[in-house]
Amino acid sequence: MADSPNCDLKSLSPLQLFEKVTEQGEKVRALKAGKAPKDEIDAAVRMLLSLKLSYKTTTGQDYQAGLPPKDLVLINNGTAKEEDEDLVDPWNVQTSNAKGVDYDKLIVRFGSSKIDTDLINRIERAIGQKPHHFLRRGIFFSHRDMDQVLDAYENKKPFYLYTGRGPSSQAMHVGHLIPFLFTKWLQEVFDVPLVIQLTDDEKYLWKDMTIEKAYEYARENAKDIIACGFDVNKTFIFSDLDYLGTSAGFYKNIVKVQKHVTFNQVKGIFGFTDSDCIGKISFPAIQAAPSFSSSFPQIFNGKDNIQCLIPCAIDQDPYFRMTRDVAPRIGHPKPALLHSVFFPALQGAQTKMSASDPNSSIFLTDTPKQIKTKINKHAFSGGRDTIEEHRKYGGNCEVDVSFMYLTFFLEDDDRLEQLKQAYTSGELLTGELKKVLIETMQPLVAAHQERRKQVTDEIVKQFMTPRKLAFEF
Amino acid sequence: MADSPNCDLKSLSPLQLFEKVTEQGEKVRALKAGKAPKDEIDAAVRMLLSLKLSYKTTTGQDYQAGLPPKDLVLINNGTAKEEDEDLVDPWNVQTSNAKGVDYDKLIVRFGSSKIDTDLINRIERAIGQKPHHFLRRGIFFSHRDMDQVLDAYENKKPFYLYTGRGPSSQAMHVGHLIPFLFTKWLQEVFDVPLVIQLTDDEKYLWKDMTIEKAYEYARENAKDIIACGFDVNKTFIFSDLDYLGTSAGFYKNIVKVQKHVTFNQVKGIFGFTDSDCIGKISFPAIQAAPSFSSSFPQIFNGKDNIQCLIPCAIDQDPYFRMTRDVAPRIGHPKPALLHSVFFPALQGAQTKMSASDPNSSIFLTDTPKQIKTKINKHAFSGGRDTIEEHRKYGGNCEVDVSFMYLTFFLEDDDRLEQLKQAYTSGELLTGELKKVLIETMQPLVAAHQERRKQVTDEIVKQFMTPRKLAFEF
Repeated sequence: MADSPNCDLKSLSPLQLFEKVTEQGEKVRALKAGKAPKDEIDAAVRMLLSLKLSYKTTTGQDYQAGLPPKDLVLINNGTAKEEDEDLVDPWNVQTSNAKGVDYDKLIVRFGSSKIDTDLINRIERAIGQKPHHFLRRGIFFSHRDMDQVLDAYENKKPFYLYTGRGPSSQAMHVGHLIPFLFTKWLQEVFDVPLVIQLTDDEKYLWKDMTIEKAYEYARENAKDIIACGFDVNKTFIFSDLDYLGTSAGFYKNIVKVQKHVTFNQVKGIFGFTDSDCIGKISFPAIQAAPSFSSSFPQIFNGKDNIQCLIPCAIDQDPYFRMTRDVAPRIGHPKPALLHSVFFPALQGAQTKMSASDPNSSIFLTDTPKQIKTKINKHAFSGGRDTIEEHRKYGGNCEVDVSFMYLTFFLEDDDRLEQLKQAYTSGELLTGELKKVLIETMQPLVAAHQERRKQVTDEIVKQFMTPRKLAFEF
Repeated sequence: MADSPNCDLKSLSPLQLFEKVTEQGEKVRALKAGKAPKDEIDAAVRMLLSLKLSYKTTTGQDYQAGLPPKDLVLINNGTAKEEDEDLVDPWNVQTSNAKGVDYDKLIVRFGSSKIDTDLINRIERAIGQKPHHFLRRGIFFSHRDMDQVLDAYENKKPFYLYTGRGPSSQAMHVGHLIPFLFTKWLQEVFDVPLVIQLTDDEKYLWKDMTIEKAYEYARENAKDIIACGFDVNKTFIFSDLDYLGTSAGFYKNIVKVQKHVTFNQVKGIFGFTDSDCIGKISFPAIQAAPSFSSSFPQIFNGKDNIQCLIPCAIDQDPYFRMTRDVAPRIGHPKPALLHSVFFPALQGAQTKMSASDPNSSIFLTDTPKQIKTKINKHAFSGGRDTIEEHRKYGGNCEVDVSFMYLTFFLEDDDRLEQLKQAYTSGELLTGELKKVLIETMQPLVAAHQERRKQVTDEIVKQFMTPRKLAFEF
């Protein structure tokens, strides 16, 4: 469905059509570069030809790359069309735009708030140091009630951090680190407790996987998370399959949420159907419950009113919209949220990285050689077709995946800006930009592997044992 | 499907139906005589019951061997009327018949097997003593796979008992004791472990009740259950709200069941709708999970294949039909079942007793005076309007609630038979029959109260602590 030209093409403006043709051309190039199956490439080429035809019919001109149509006539009224919307839910992220999901649009749709300069400045004042580059560069771009968390912090009231991961495979990729790296920074600057949920039960319910396998992945993933450098005295990591059986407080909060959410609601929020298993249908309550401090009586001394702050990718927001809706009805404070953008696949920002496709990601287990090959072979380029064209017109950082990755992992602001200018001007070639990325990622992944080696089963056990942390409540 | 009588039965004449019943009766006898496979005999018996039911529906009379139908009056147009069906599910029991629910019909509808003389005799041989009067009098009237439990028992293979209660109010009534009294007898004669589930989470989900209240009721109800005389070394009583937070084995089985049951299925079985909360929708898995021995690793030493036998009222069967459907798909044995009839309300057998209407029941907290007043004032009588008429025509034991209660609580078979004959003949008046019941119930309830007083919080704690029982596995 998504690949067939829209029946409403005729209602598009010439500019919209122009953008569609451009997008499709990029898609064809990406498919060819990625050595996609022949029928997939053929279908994309057919679509491209069809779009070019529509463009010609509408404008009376042949499509020319880089030359938008003149004499624009806006033939639609500019209202948001549902078909154009990016698909974003906990299981799917899909957009037709090579620049990635339209996050401003998502903020409006989800009803969250933009992390603006004012908020970033306020965070800087509160913590007395420069905010993390994920904040400065808009990687964490949206929030809910972060002001309240800062109010509480400034009034010396406690809060805690909650984040998590669905352990769907043994190896994590670098994109999976984003929320953890940011959470680690938050924990350090605010000095607060952190709970990390591994939803092995979710993975068992959704995937063709045994309980034992899901639990094994949870423990393996815990090692990668611990290797980010969390403090065992301030951090509790738990597998649902484990912790649900060791905490009456957790189950009580789950059943409270389950009482206050109907099937109609989860159908609306998550798109469940009557054919879904009852485990999926009730699962959202399990992801909701750690938002309430009484789920961790051992950490919060039984207190049920400690404010929670959840750093997560924006696709997890539906769970917490639901949680925030329920919270006041069961007598708990609403969790606050900080939302990140998606980490793009090497092949382009249209989708987020997938742990199930080894070539879509740089994995934390990749060798330096694998990293080099993957980036050189698969990283979608915003460069021009020939060196001559590139020198003349410059590259496009907005769609170049190597540049996107550098915004995540290259901490030096000045260097990043230099790279951007050099690439955009055509001074820096795609191969050179890729080299910078390779040289950034190789030591980063190697250092992670080195730290992960130090994470013994005993250390995992320490992190995963329910216990008091180094905070008084 | 194969076991249900052909839809064309409705077009048969009463005489043709009579012949079909006779034929089927002969077939059953032949199969039993020929020691045919159990499932073949069961299927034939179910068919026989179903044919008898059609015969009764069509003719308004019970089938009697050798007595073809006389004076035929078609009481309906031959089509089965759904409105005539008794309503029986875990939350409602309703019938328009003063004799109570039509249990033969229920056996056919639920696809269970009748507890017949052969099975009762086999139990007697296995245990070497007279079966409980609940079995002899048809109070436990239906089963699933009880033969398999006896096979296992005779081959010295272990099994365990599982029963439960939804703690909806502080005080239990005498009807609530039925499954526990019978379970206690089963435990004694077979010498097996017993687990008793208190579904406080269910009550929280279904009722306007706090979690704390539901849990308090669970502990109060545990005292009444313990007062039945269970052996603390062989019995584990648990509240879901409690035990779910202390046993990873239990939650793992719950999530396994939840993966294998869809919303469509629970909609069909329990009548849930889209407006029901997700807690209700997923709850059936929580009642299912104790049917699997791996939910109690501390008792069964981690073994997951110990056969379970569930004594319960027939209205709980939907949960276990679902459980039996799932069991083989998650690698566990199907639980066997023994079903009891409902305990009638004082006002008549149309409904089961309700803990929420104090006059519908004799409560375990009632004083001797309250018991006397309730029986005299509310117990529905099968007697005649005047003493003269009663002496002349006699009373009707089939609808007389005092007599029904005596079948539950008067253990002396000879005495019960004498009362029946005297009441039916008109020799015994309603007031006299009620007096017998009062004199039966007063000491019984008083003795229960005396035993309950001995049940300290410490004893409750012992029963409710997860631990090894006095059995090796």
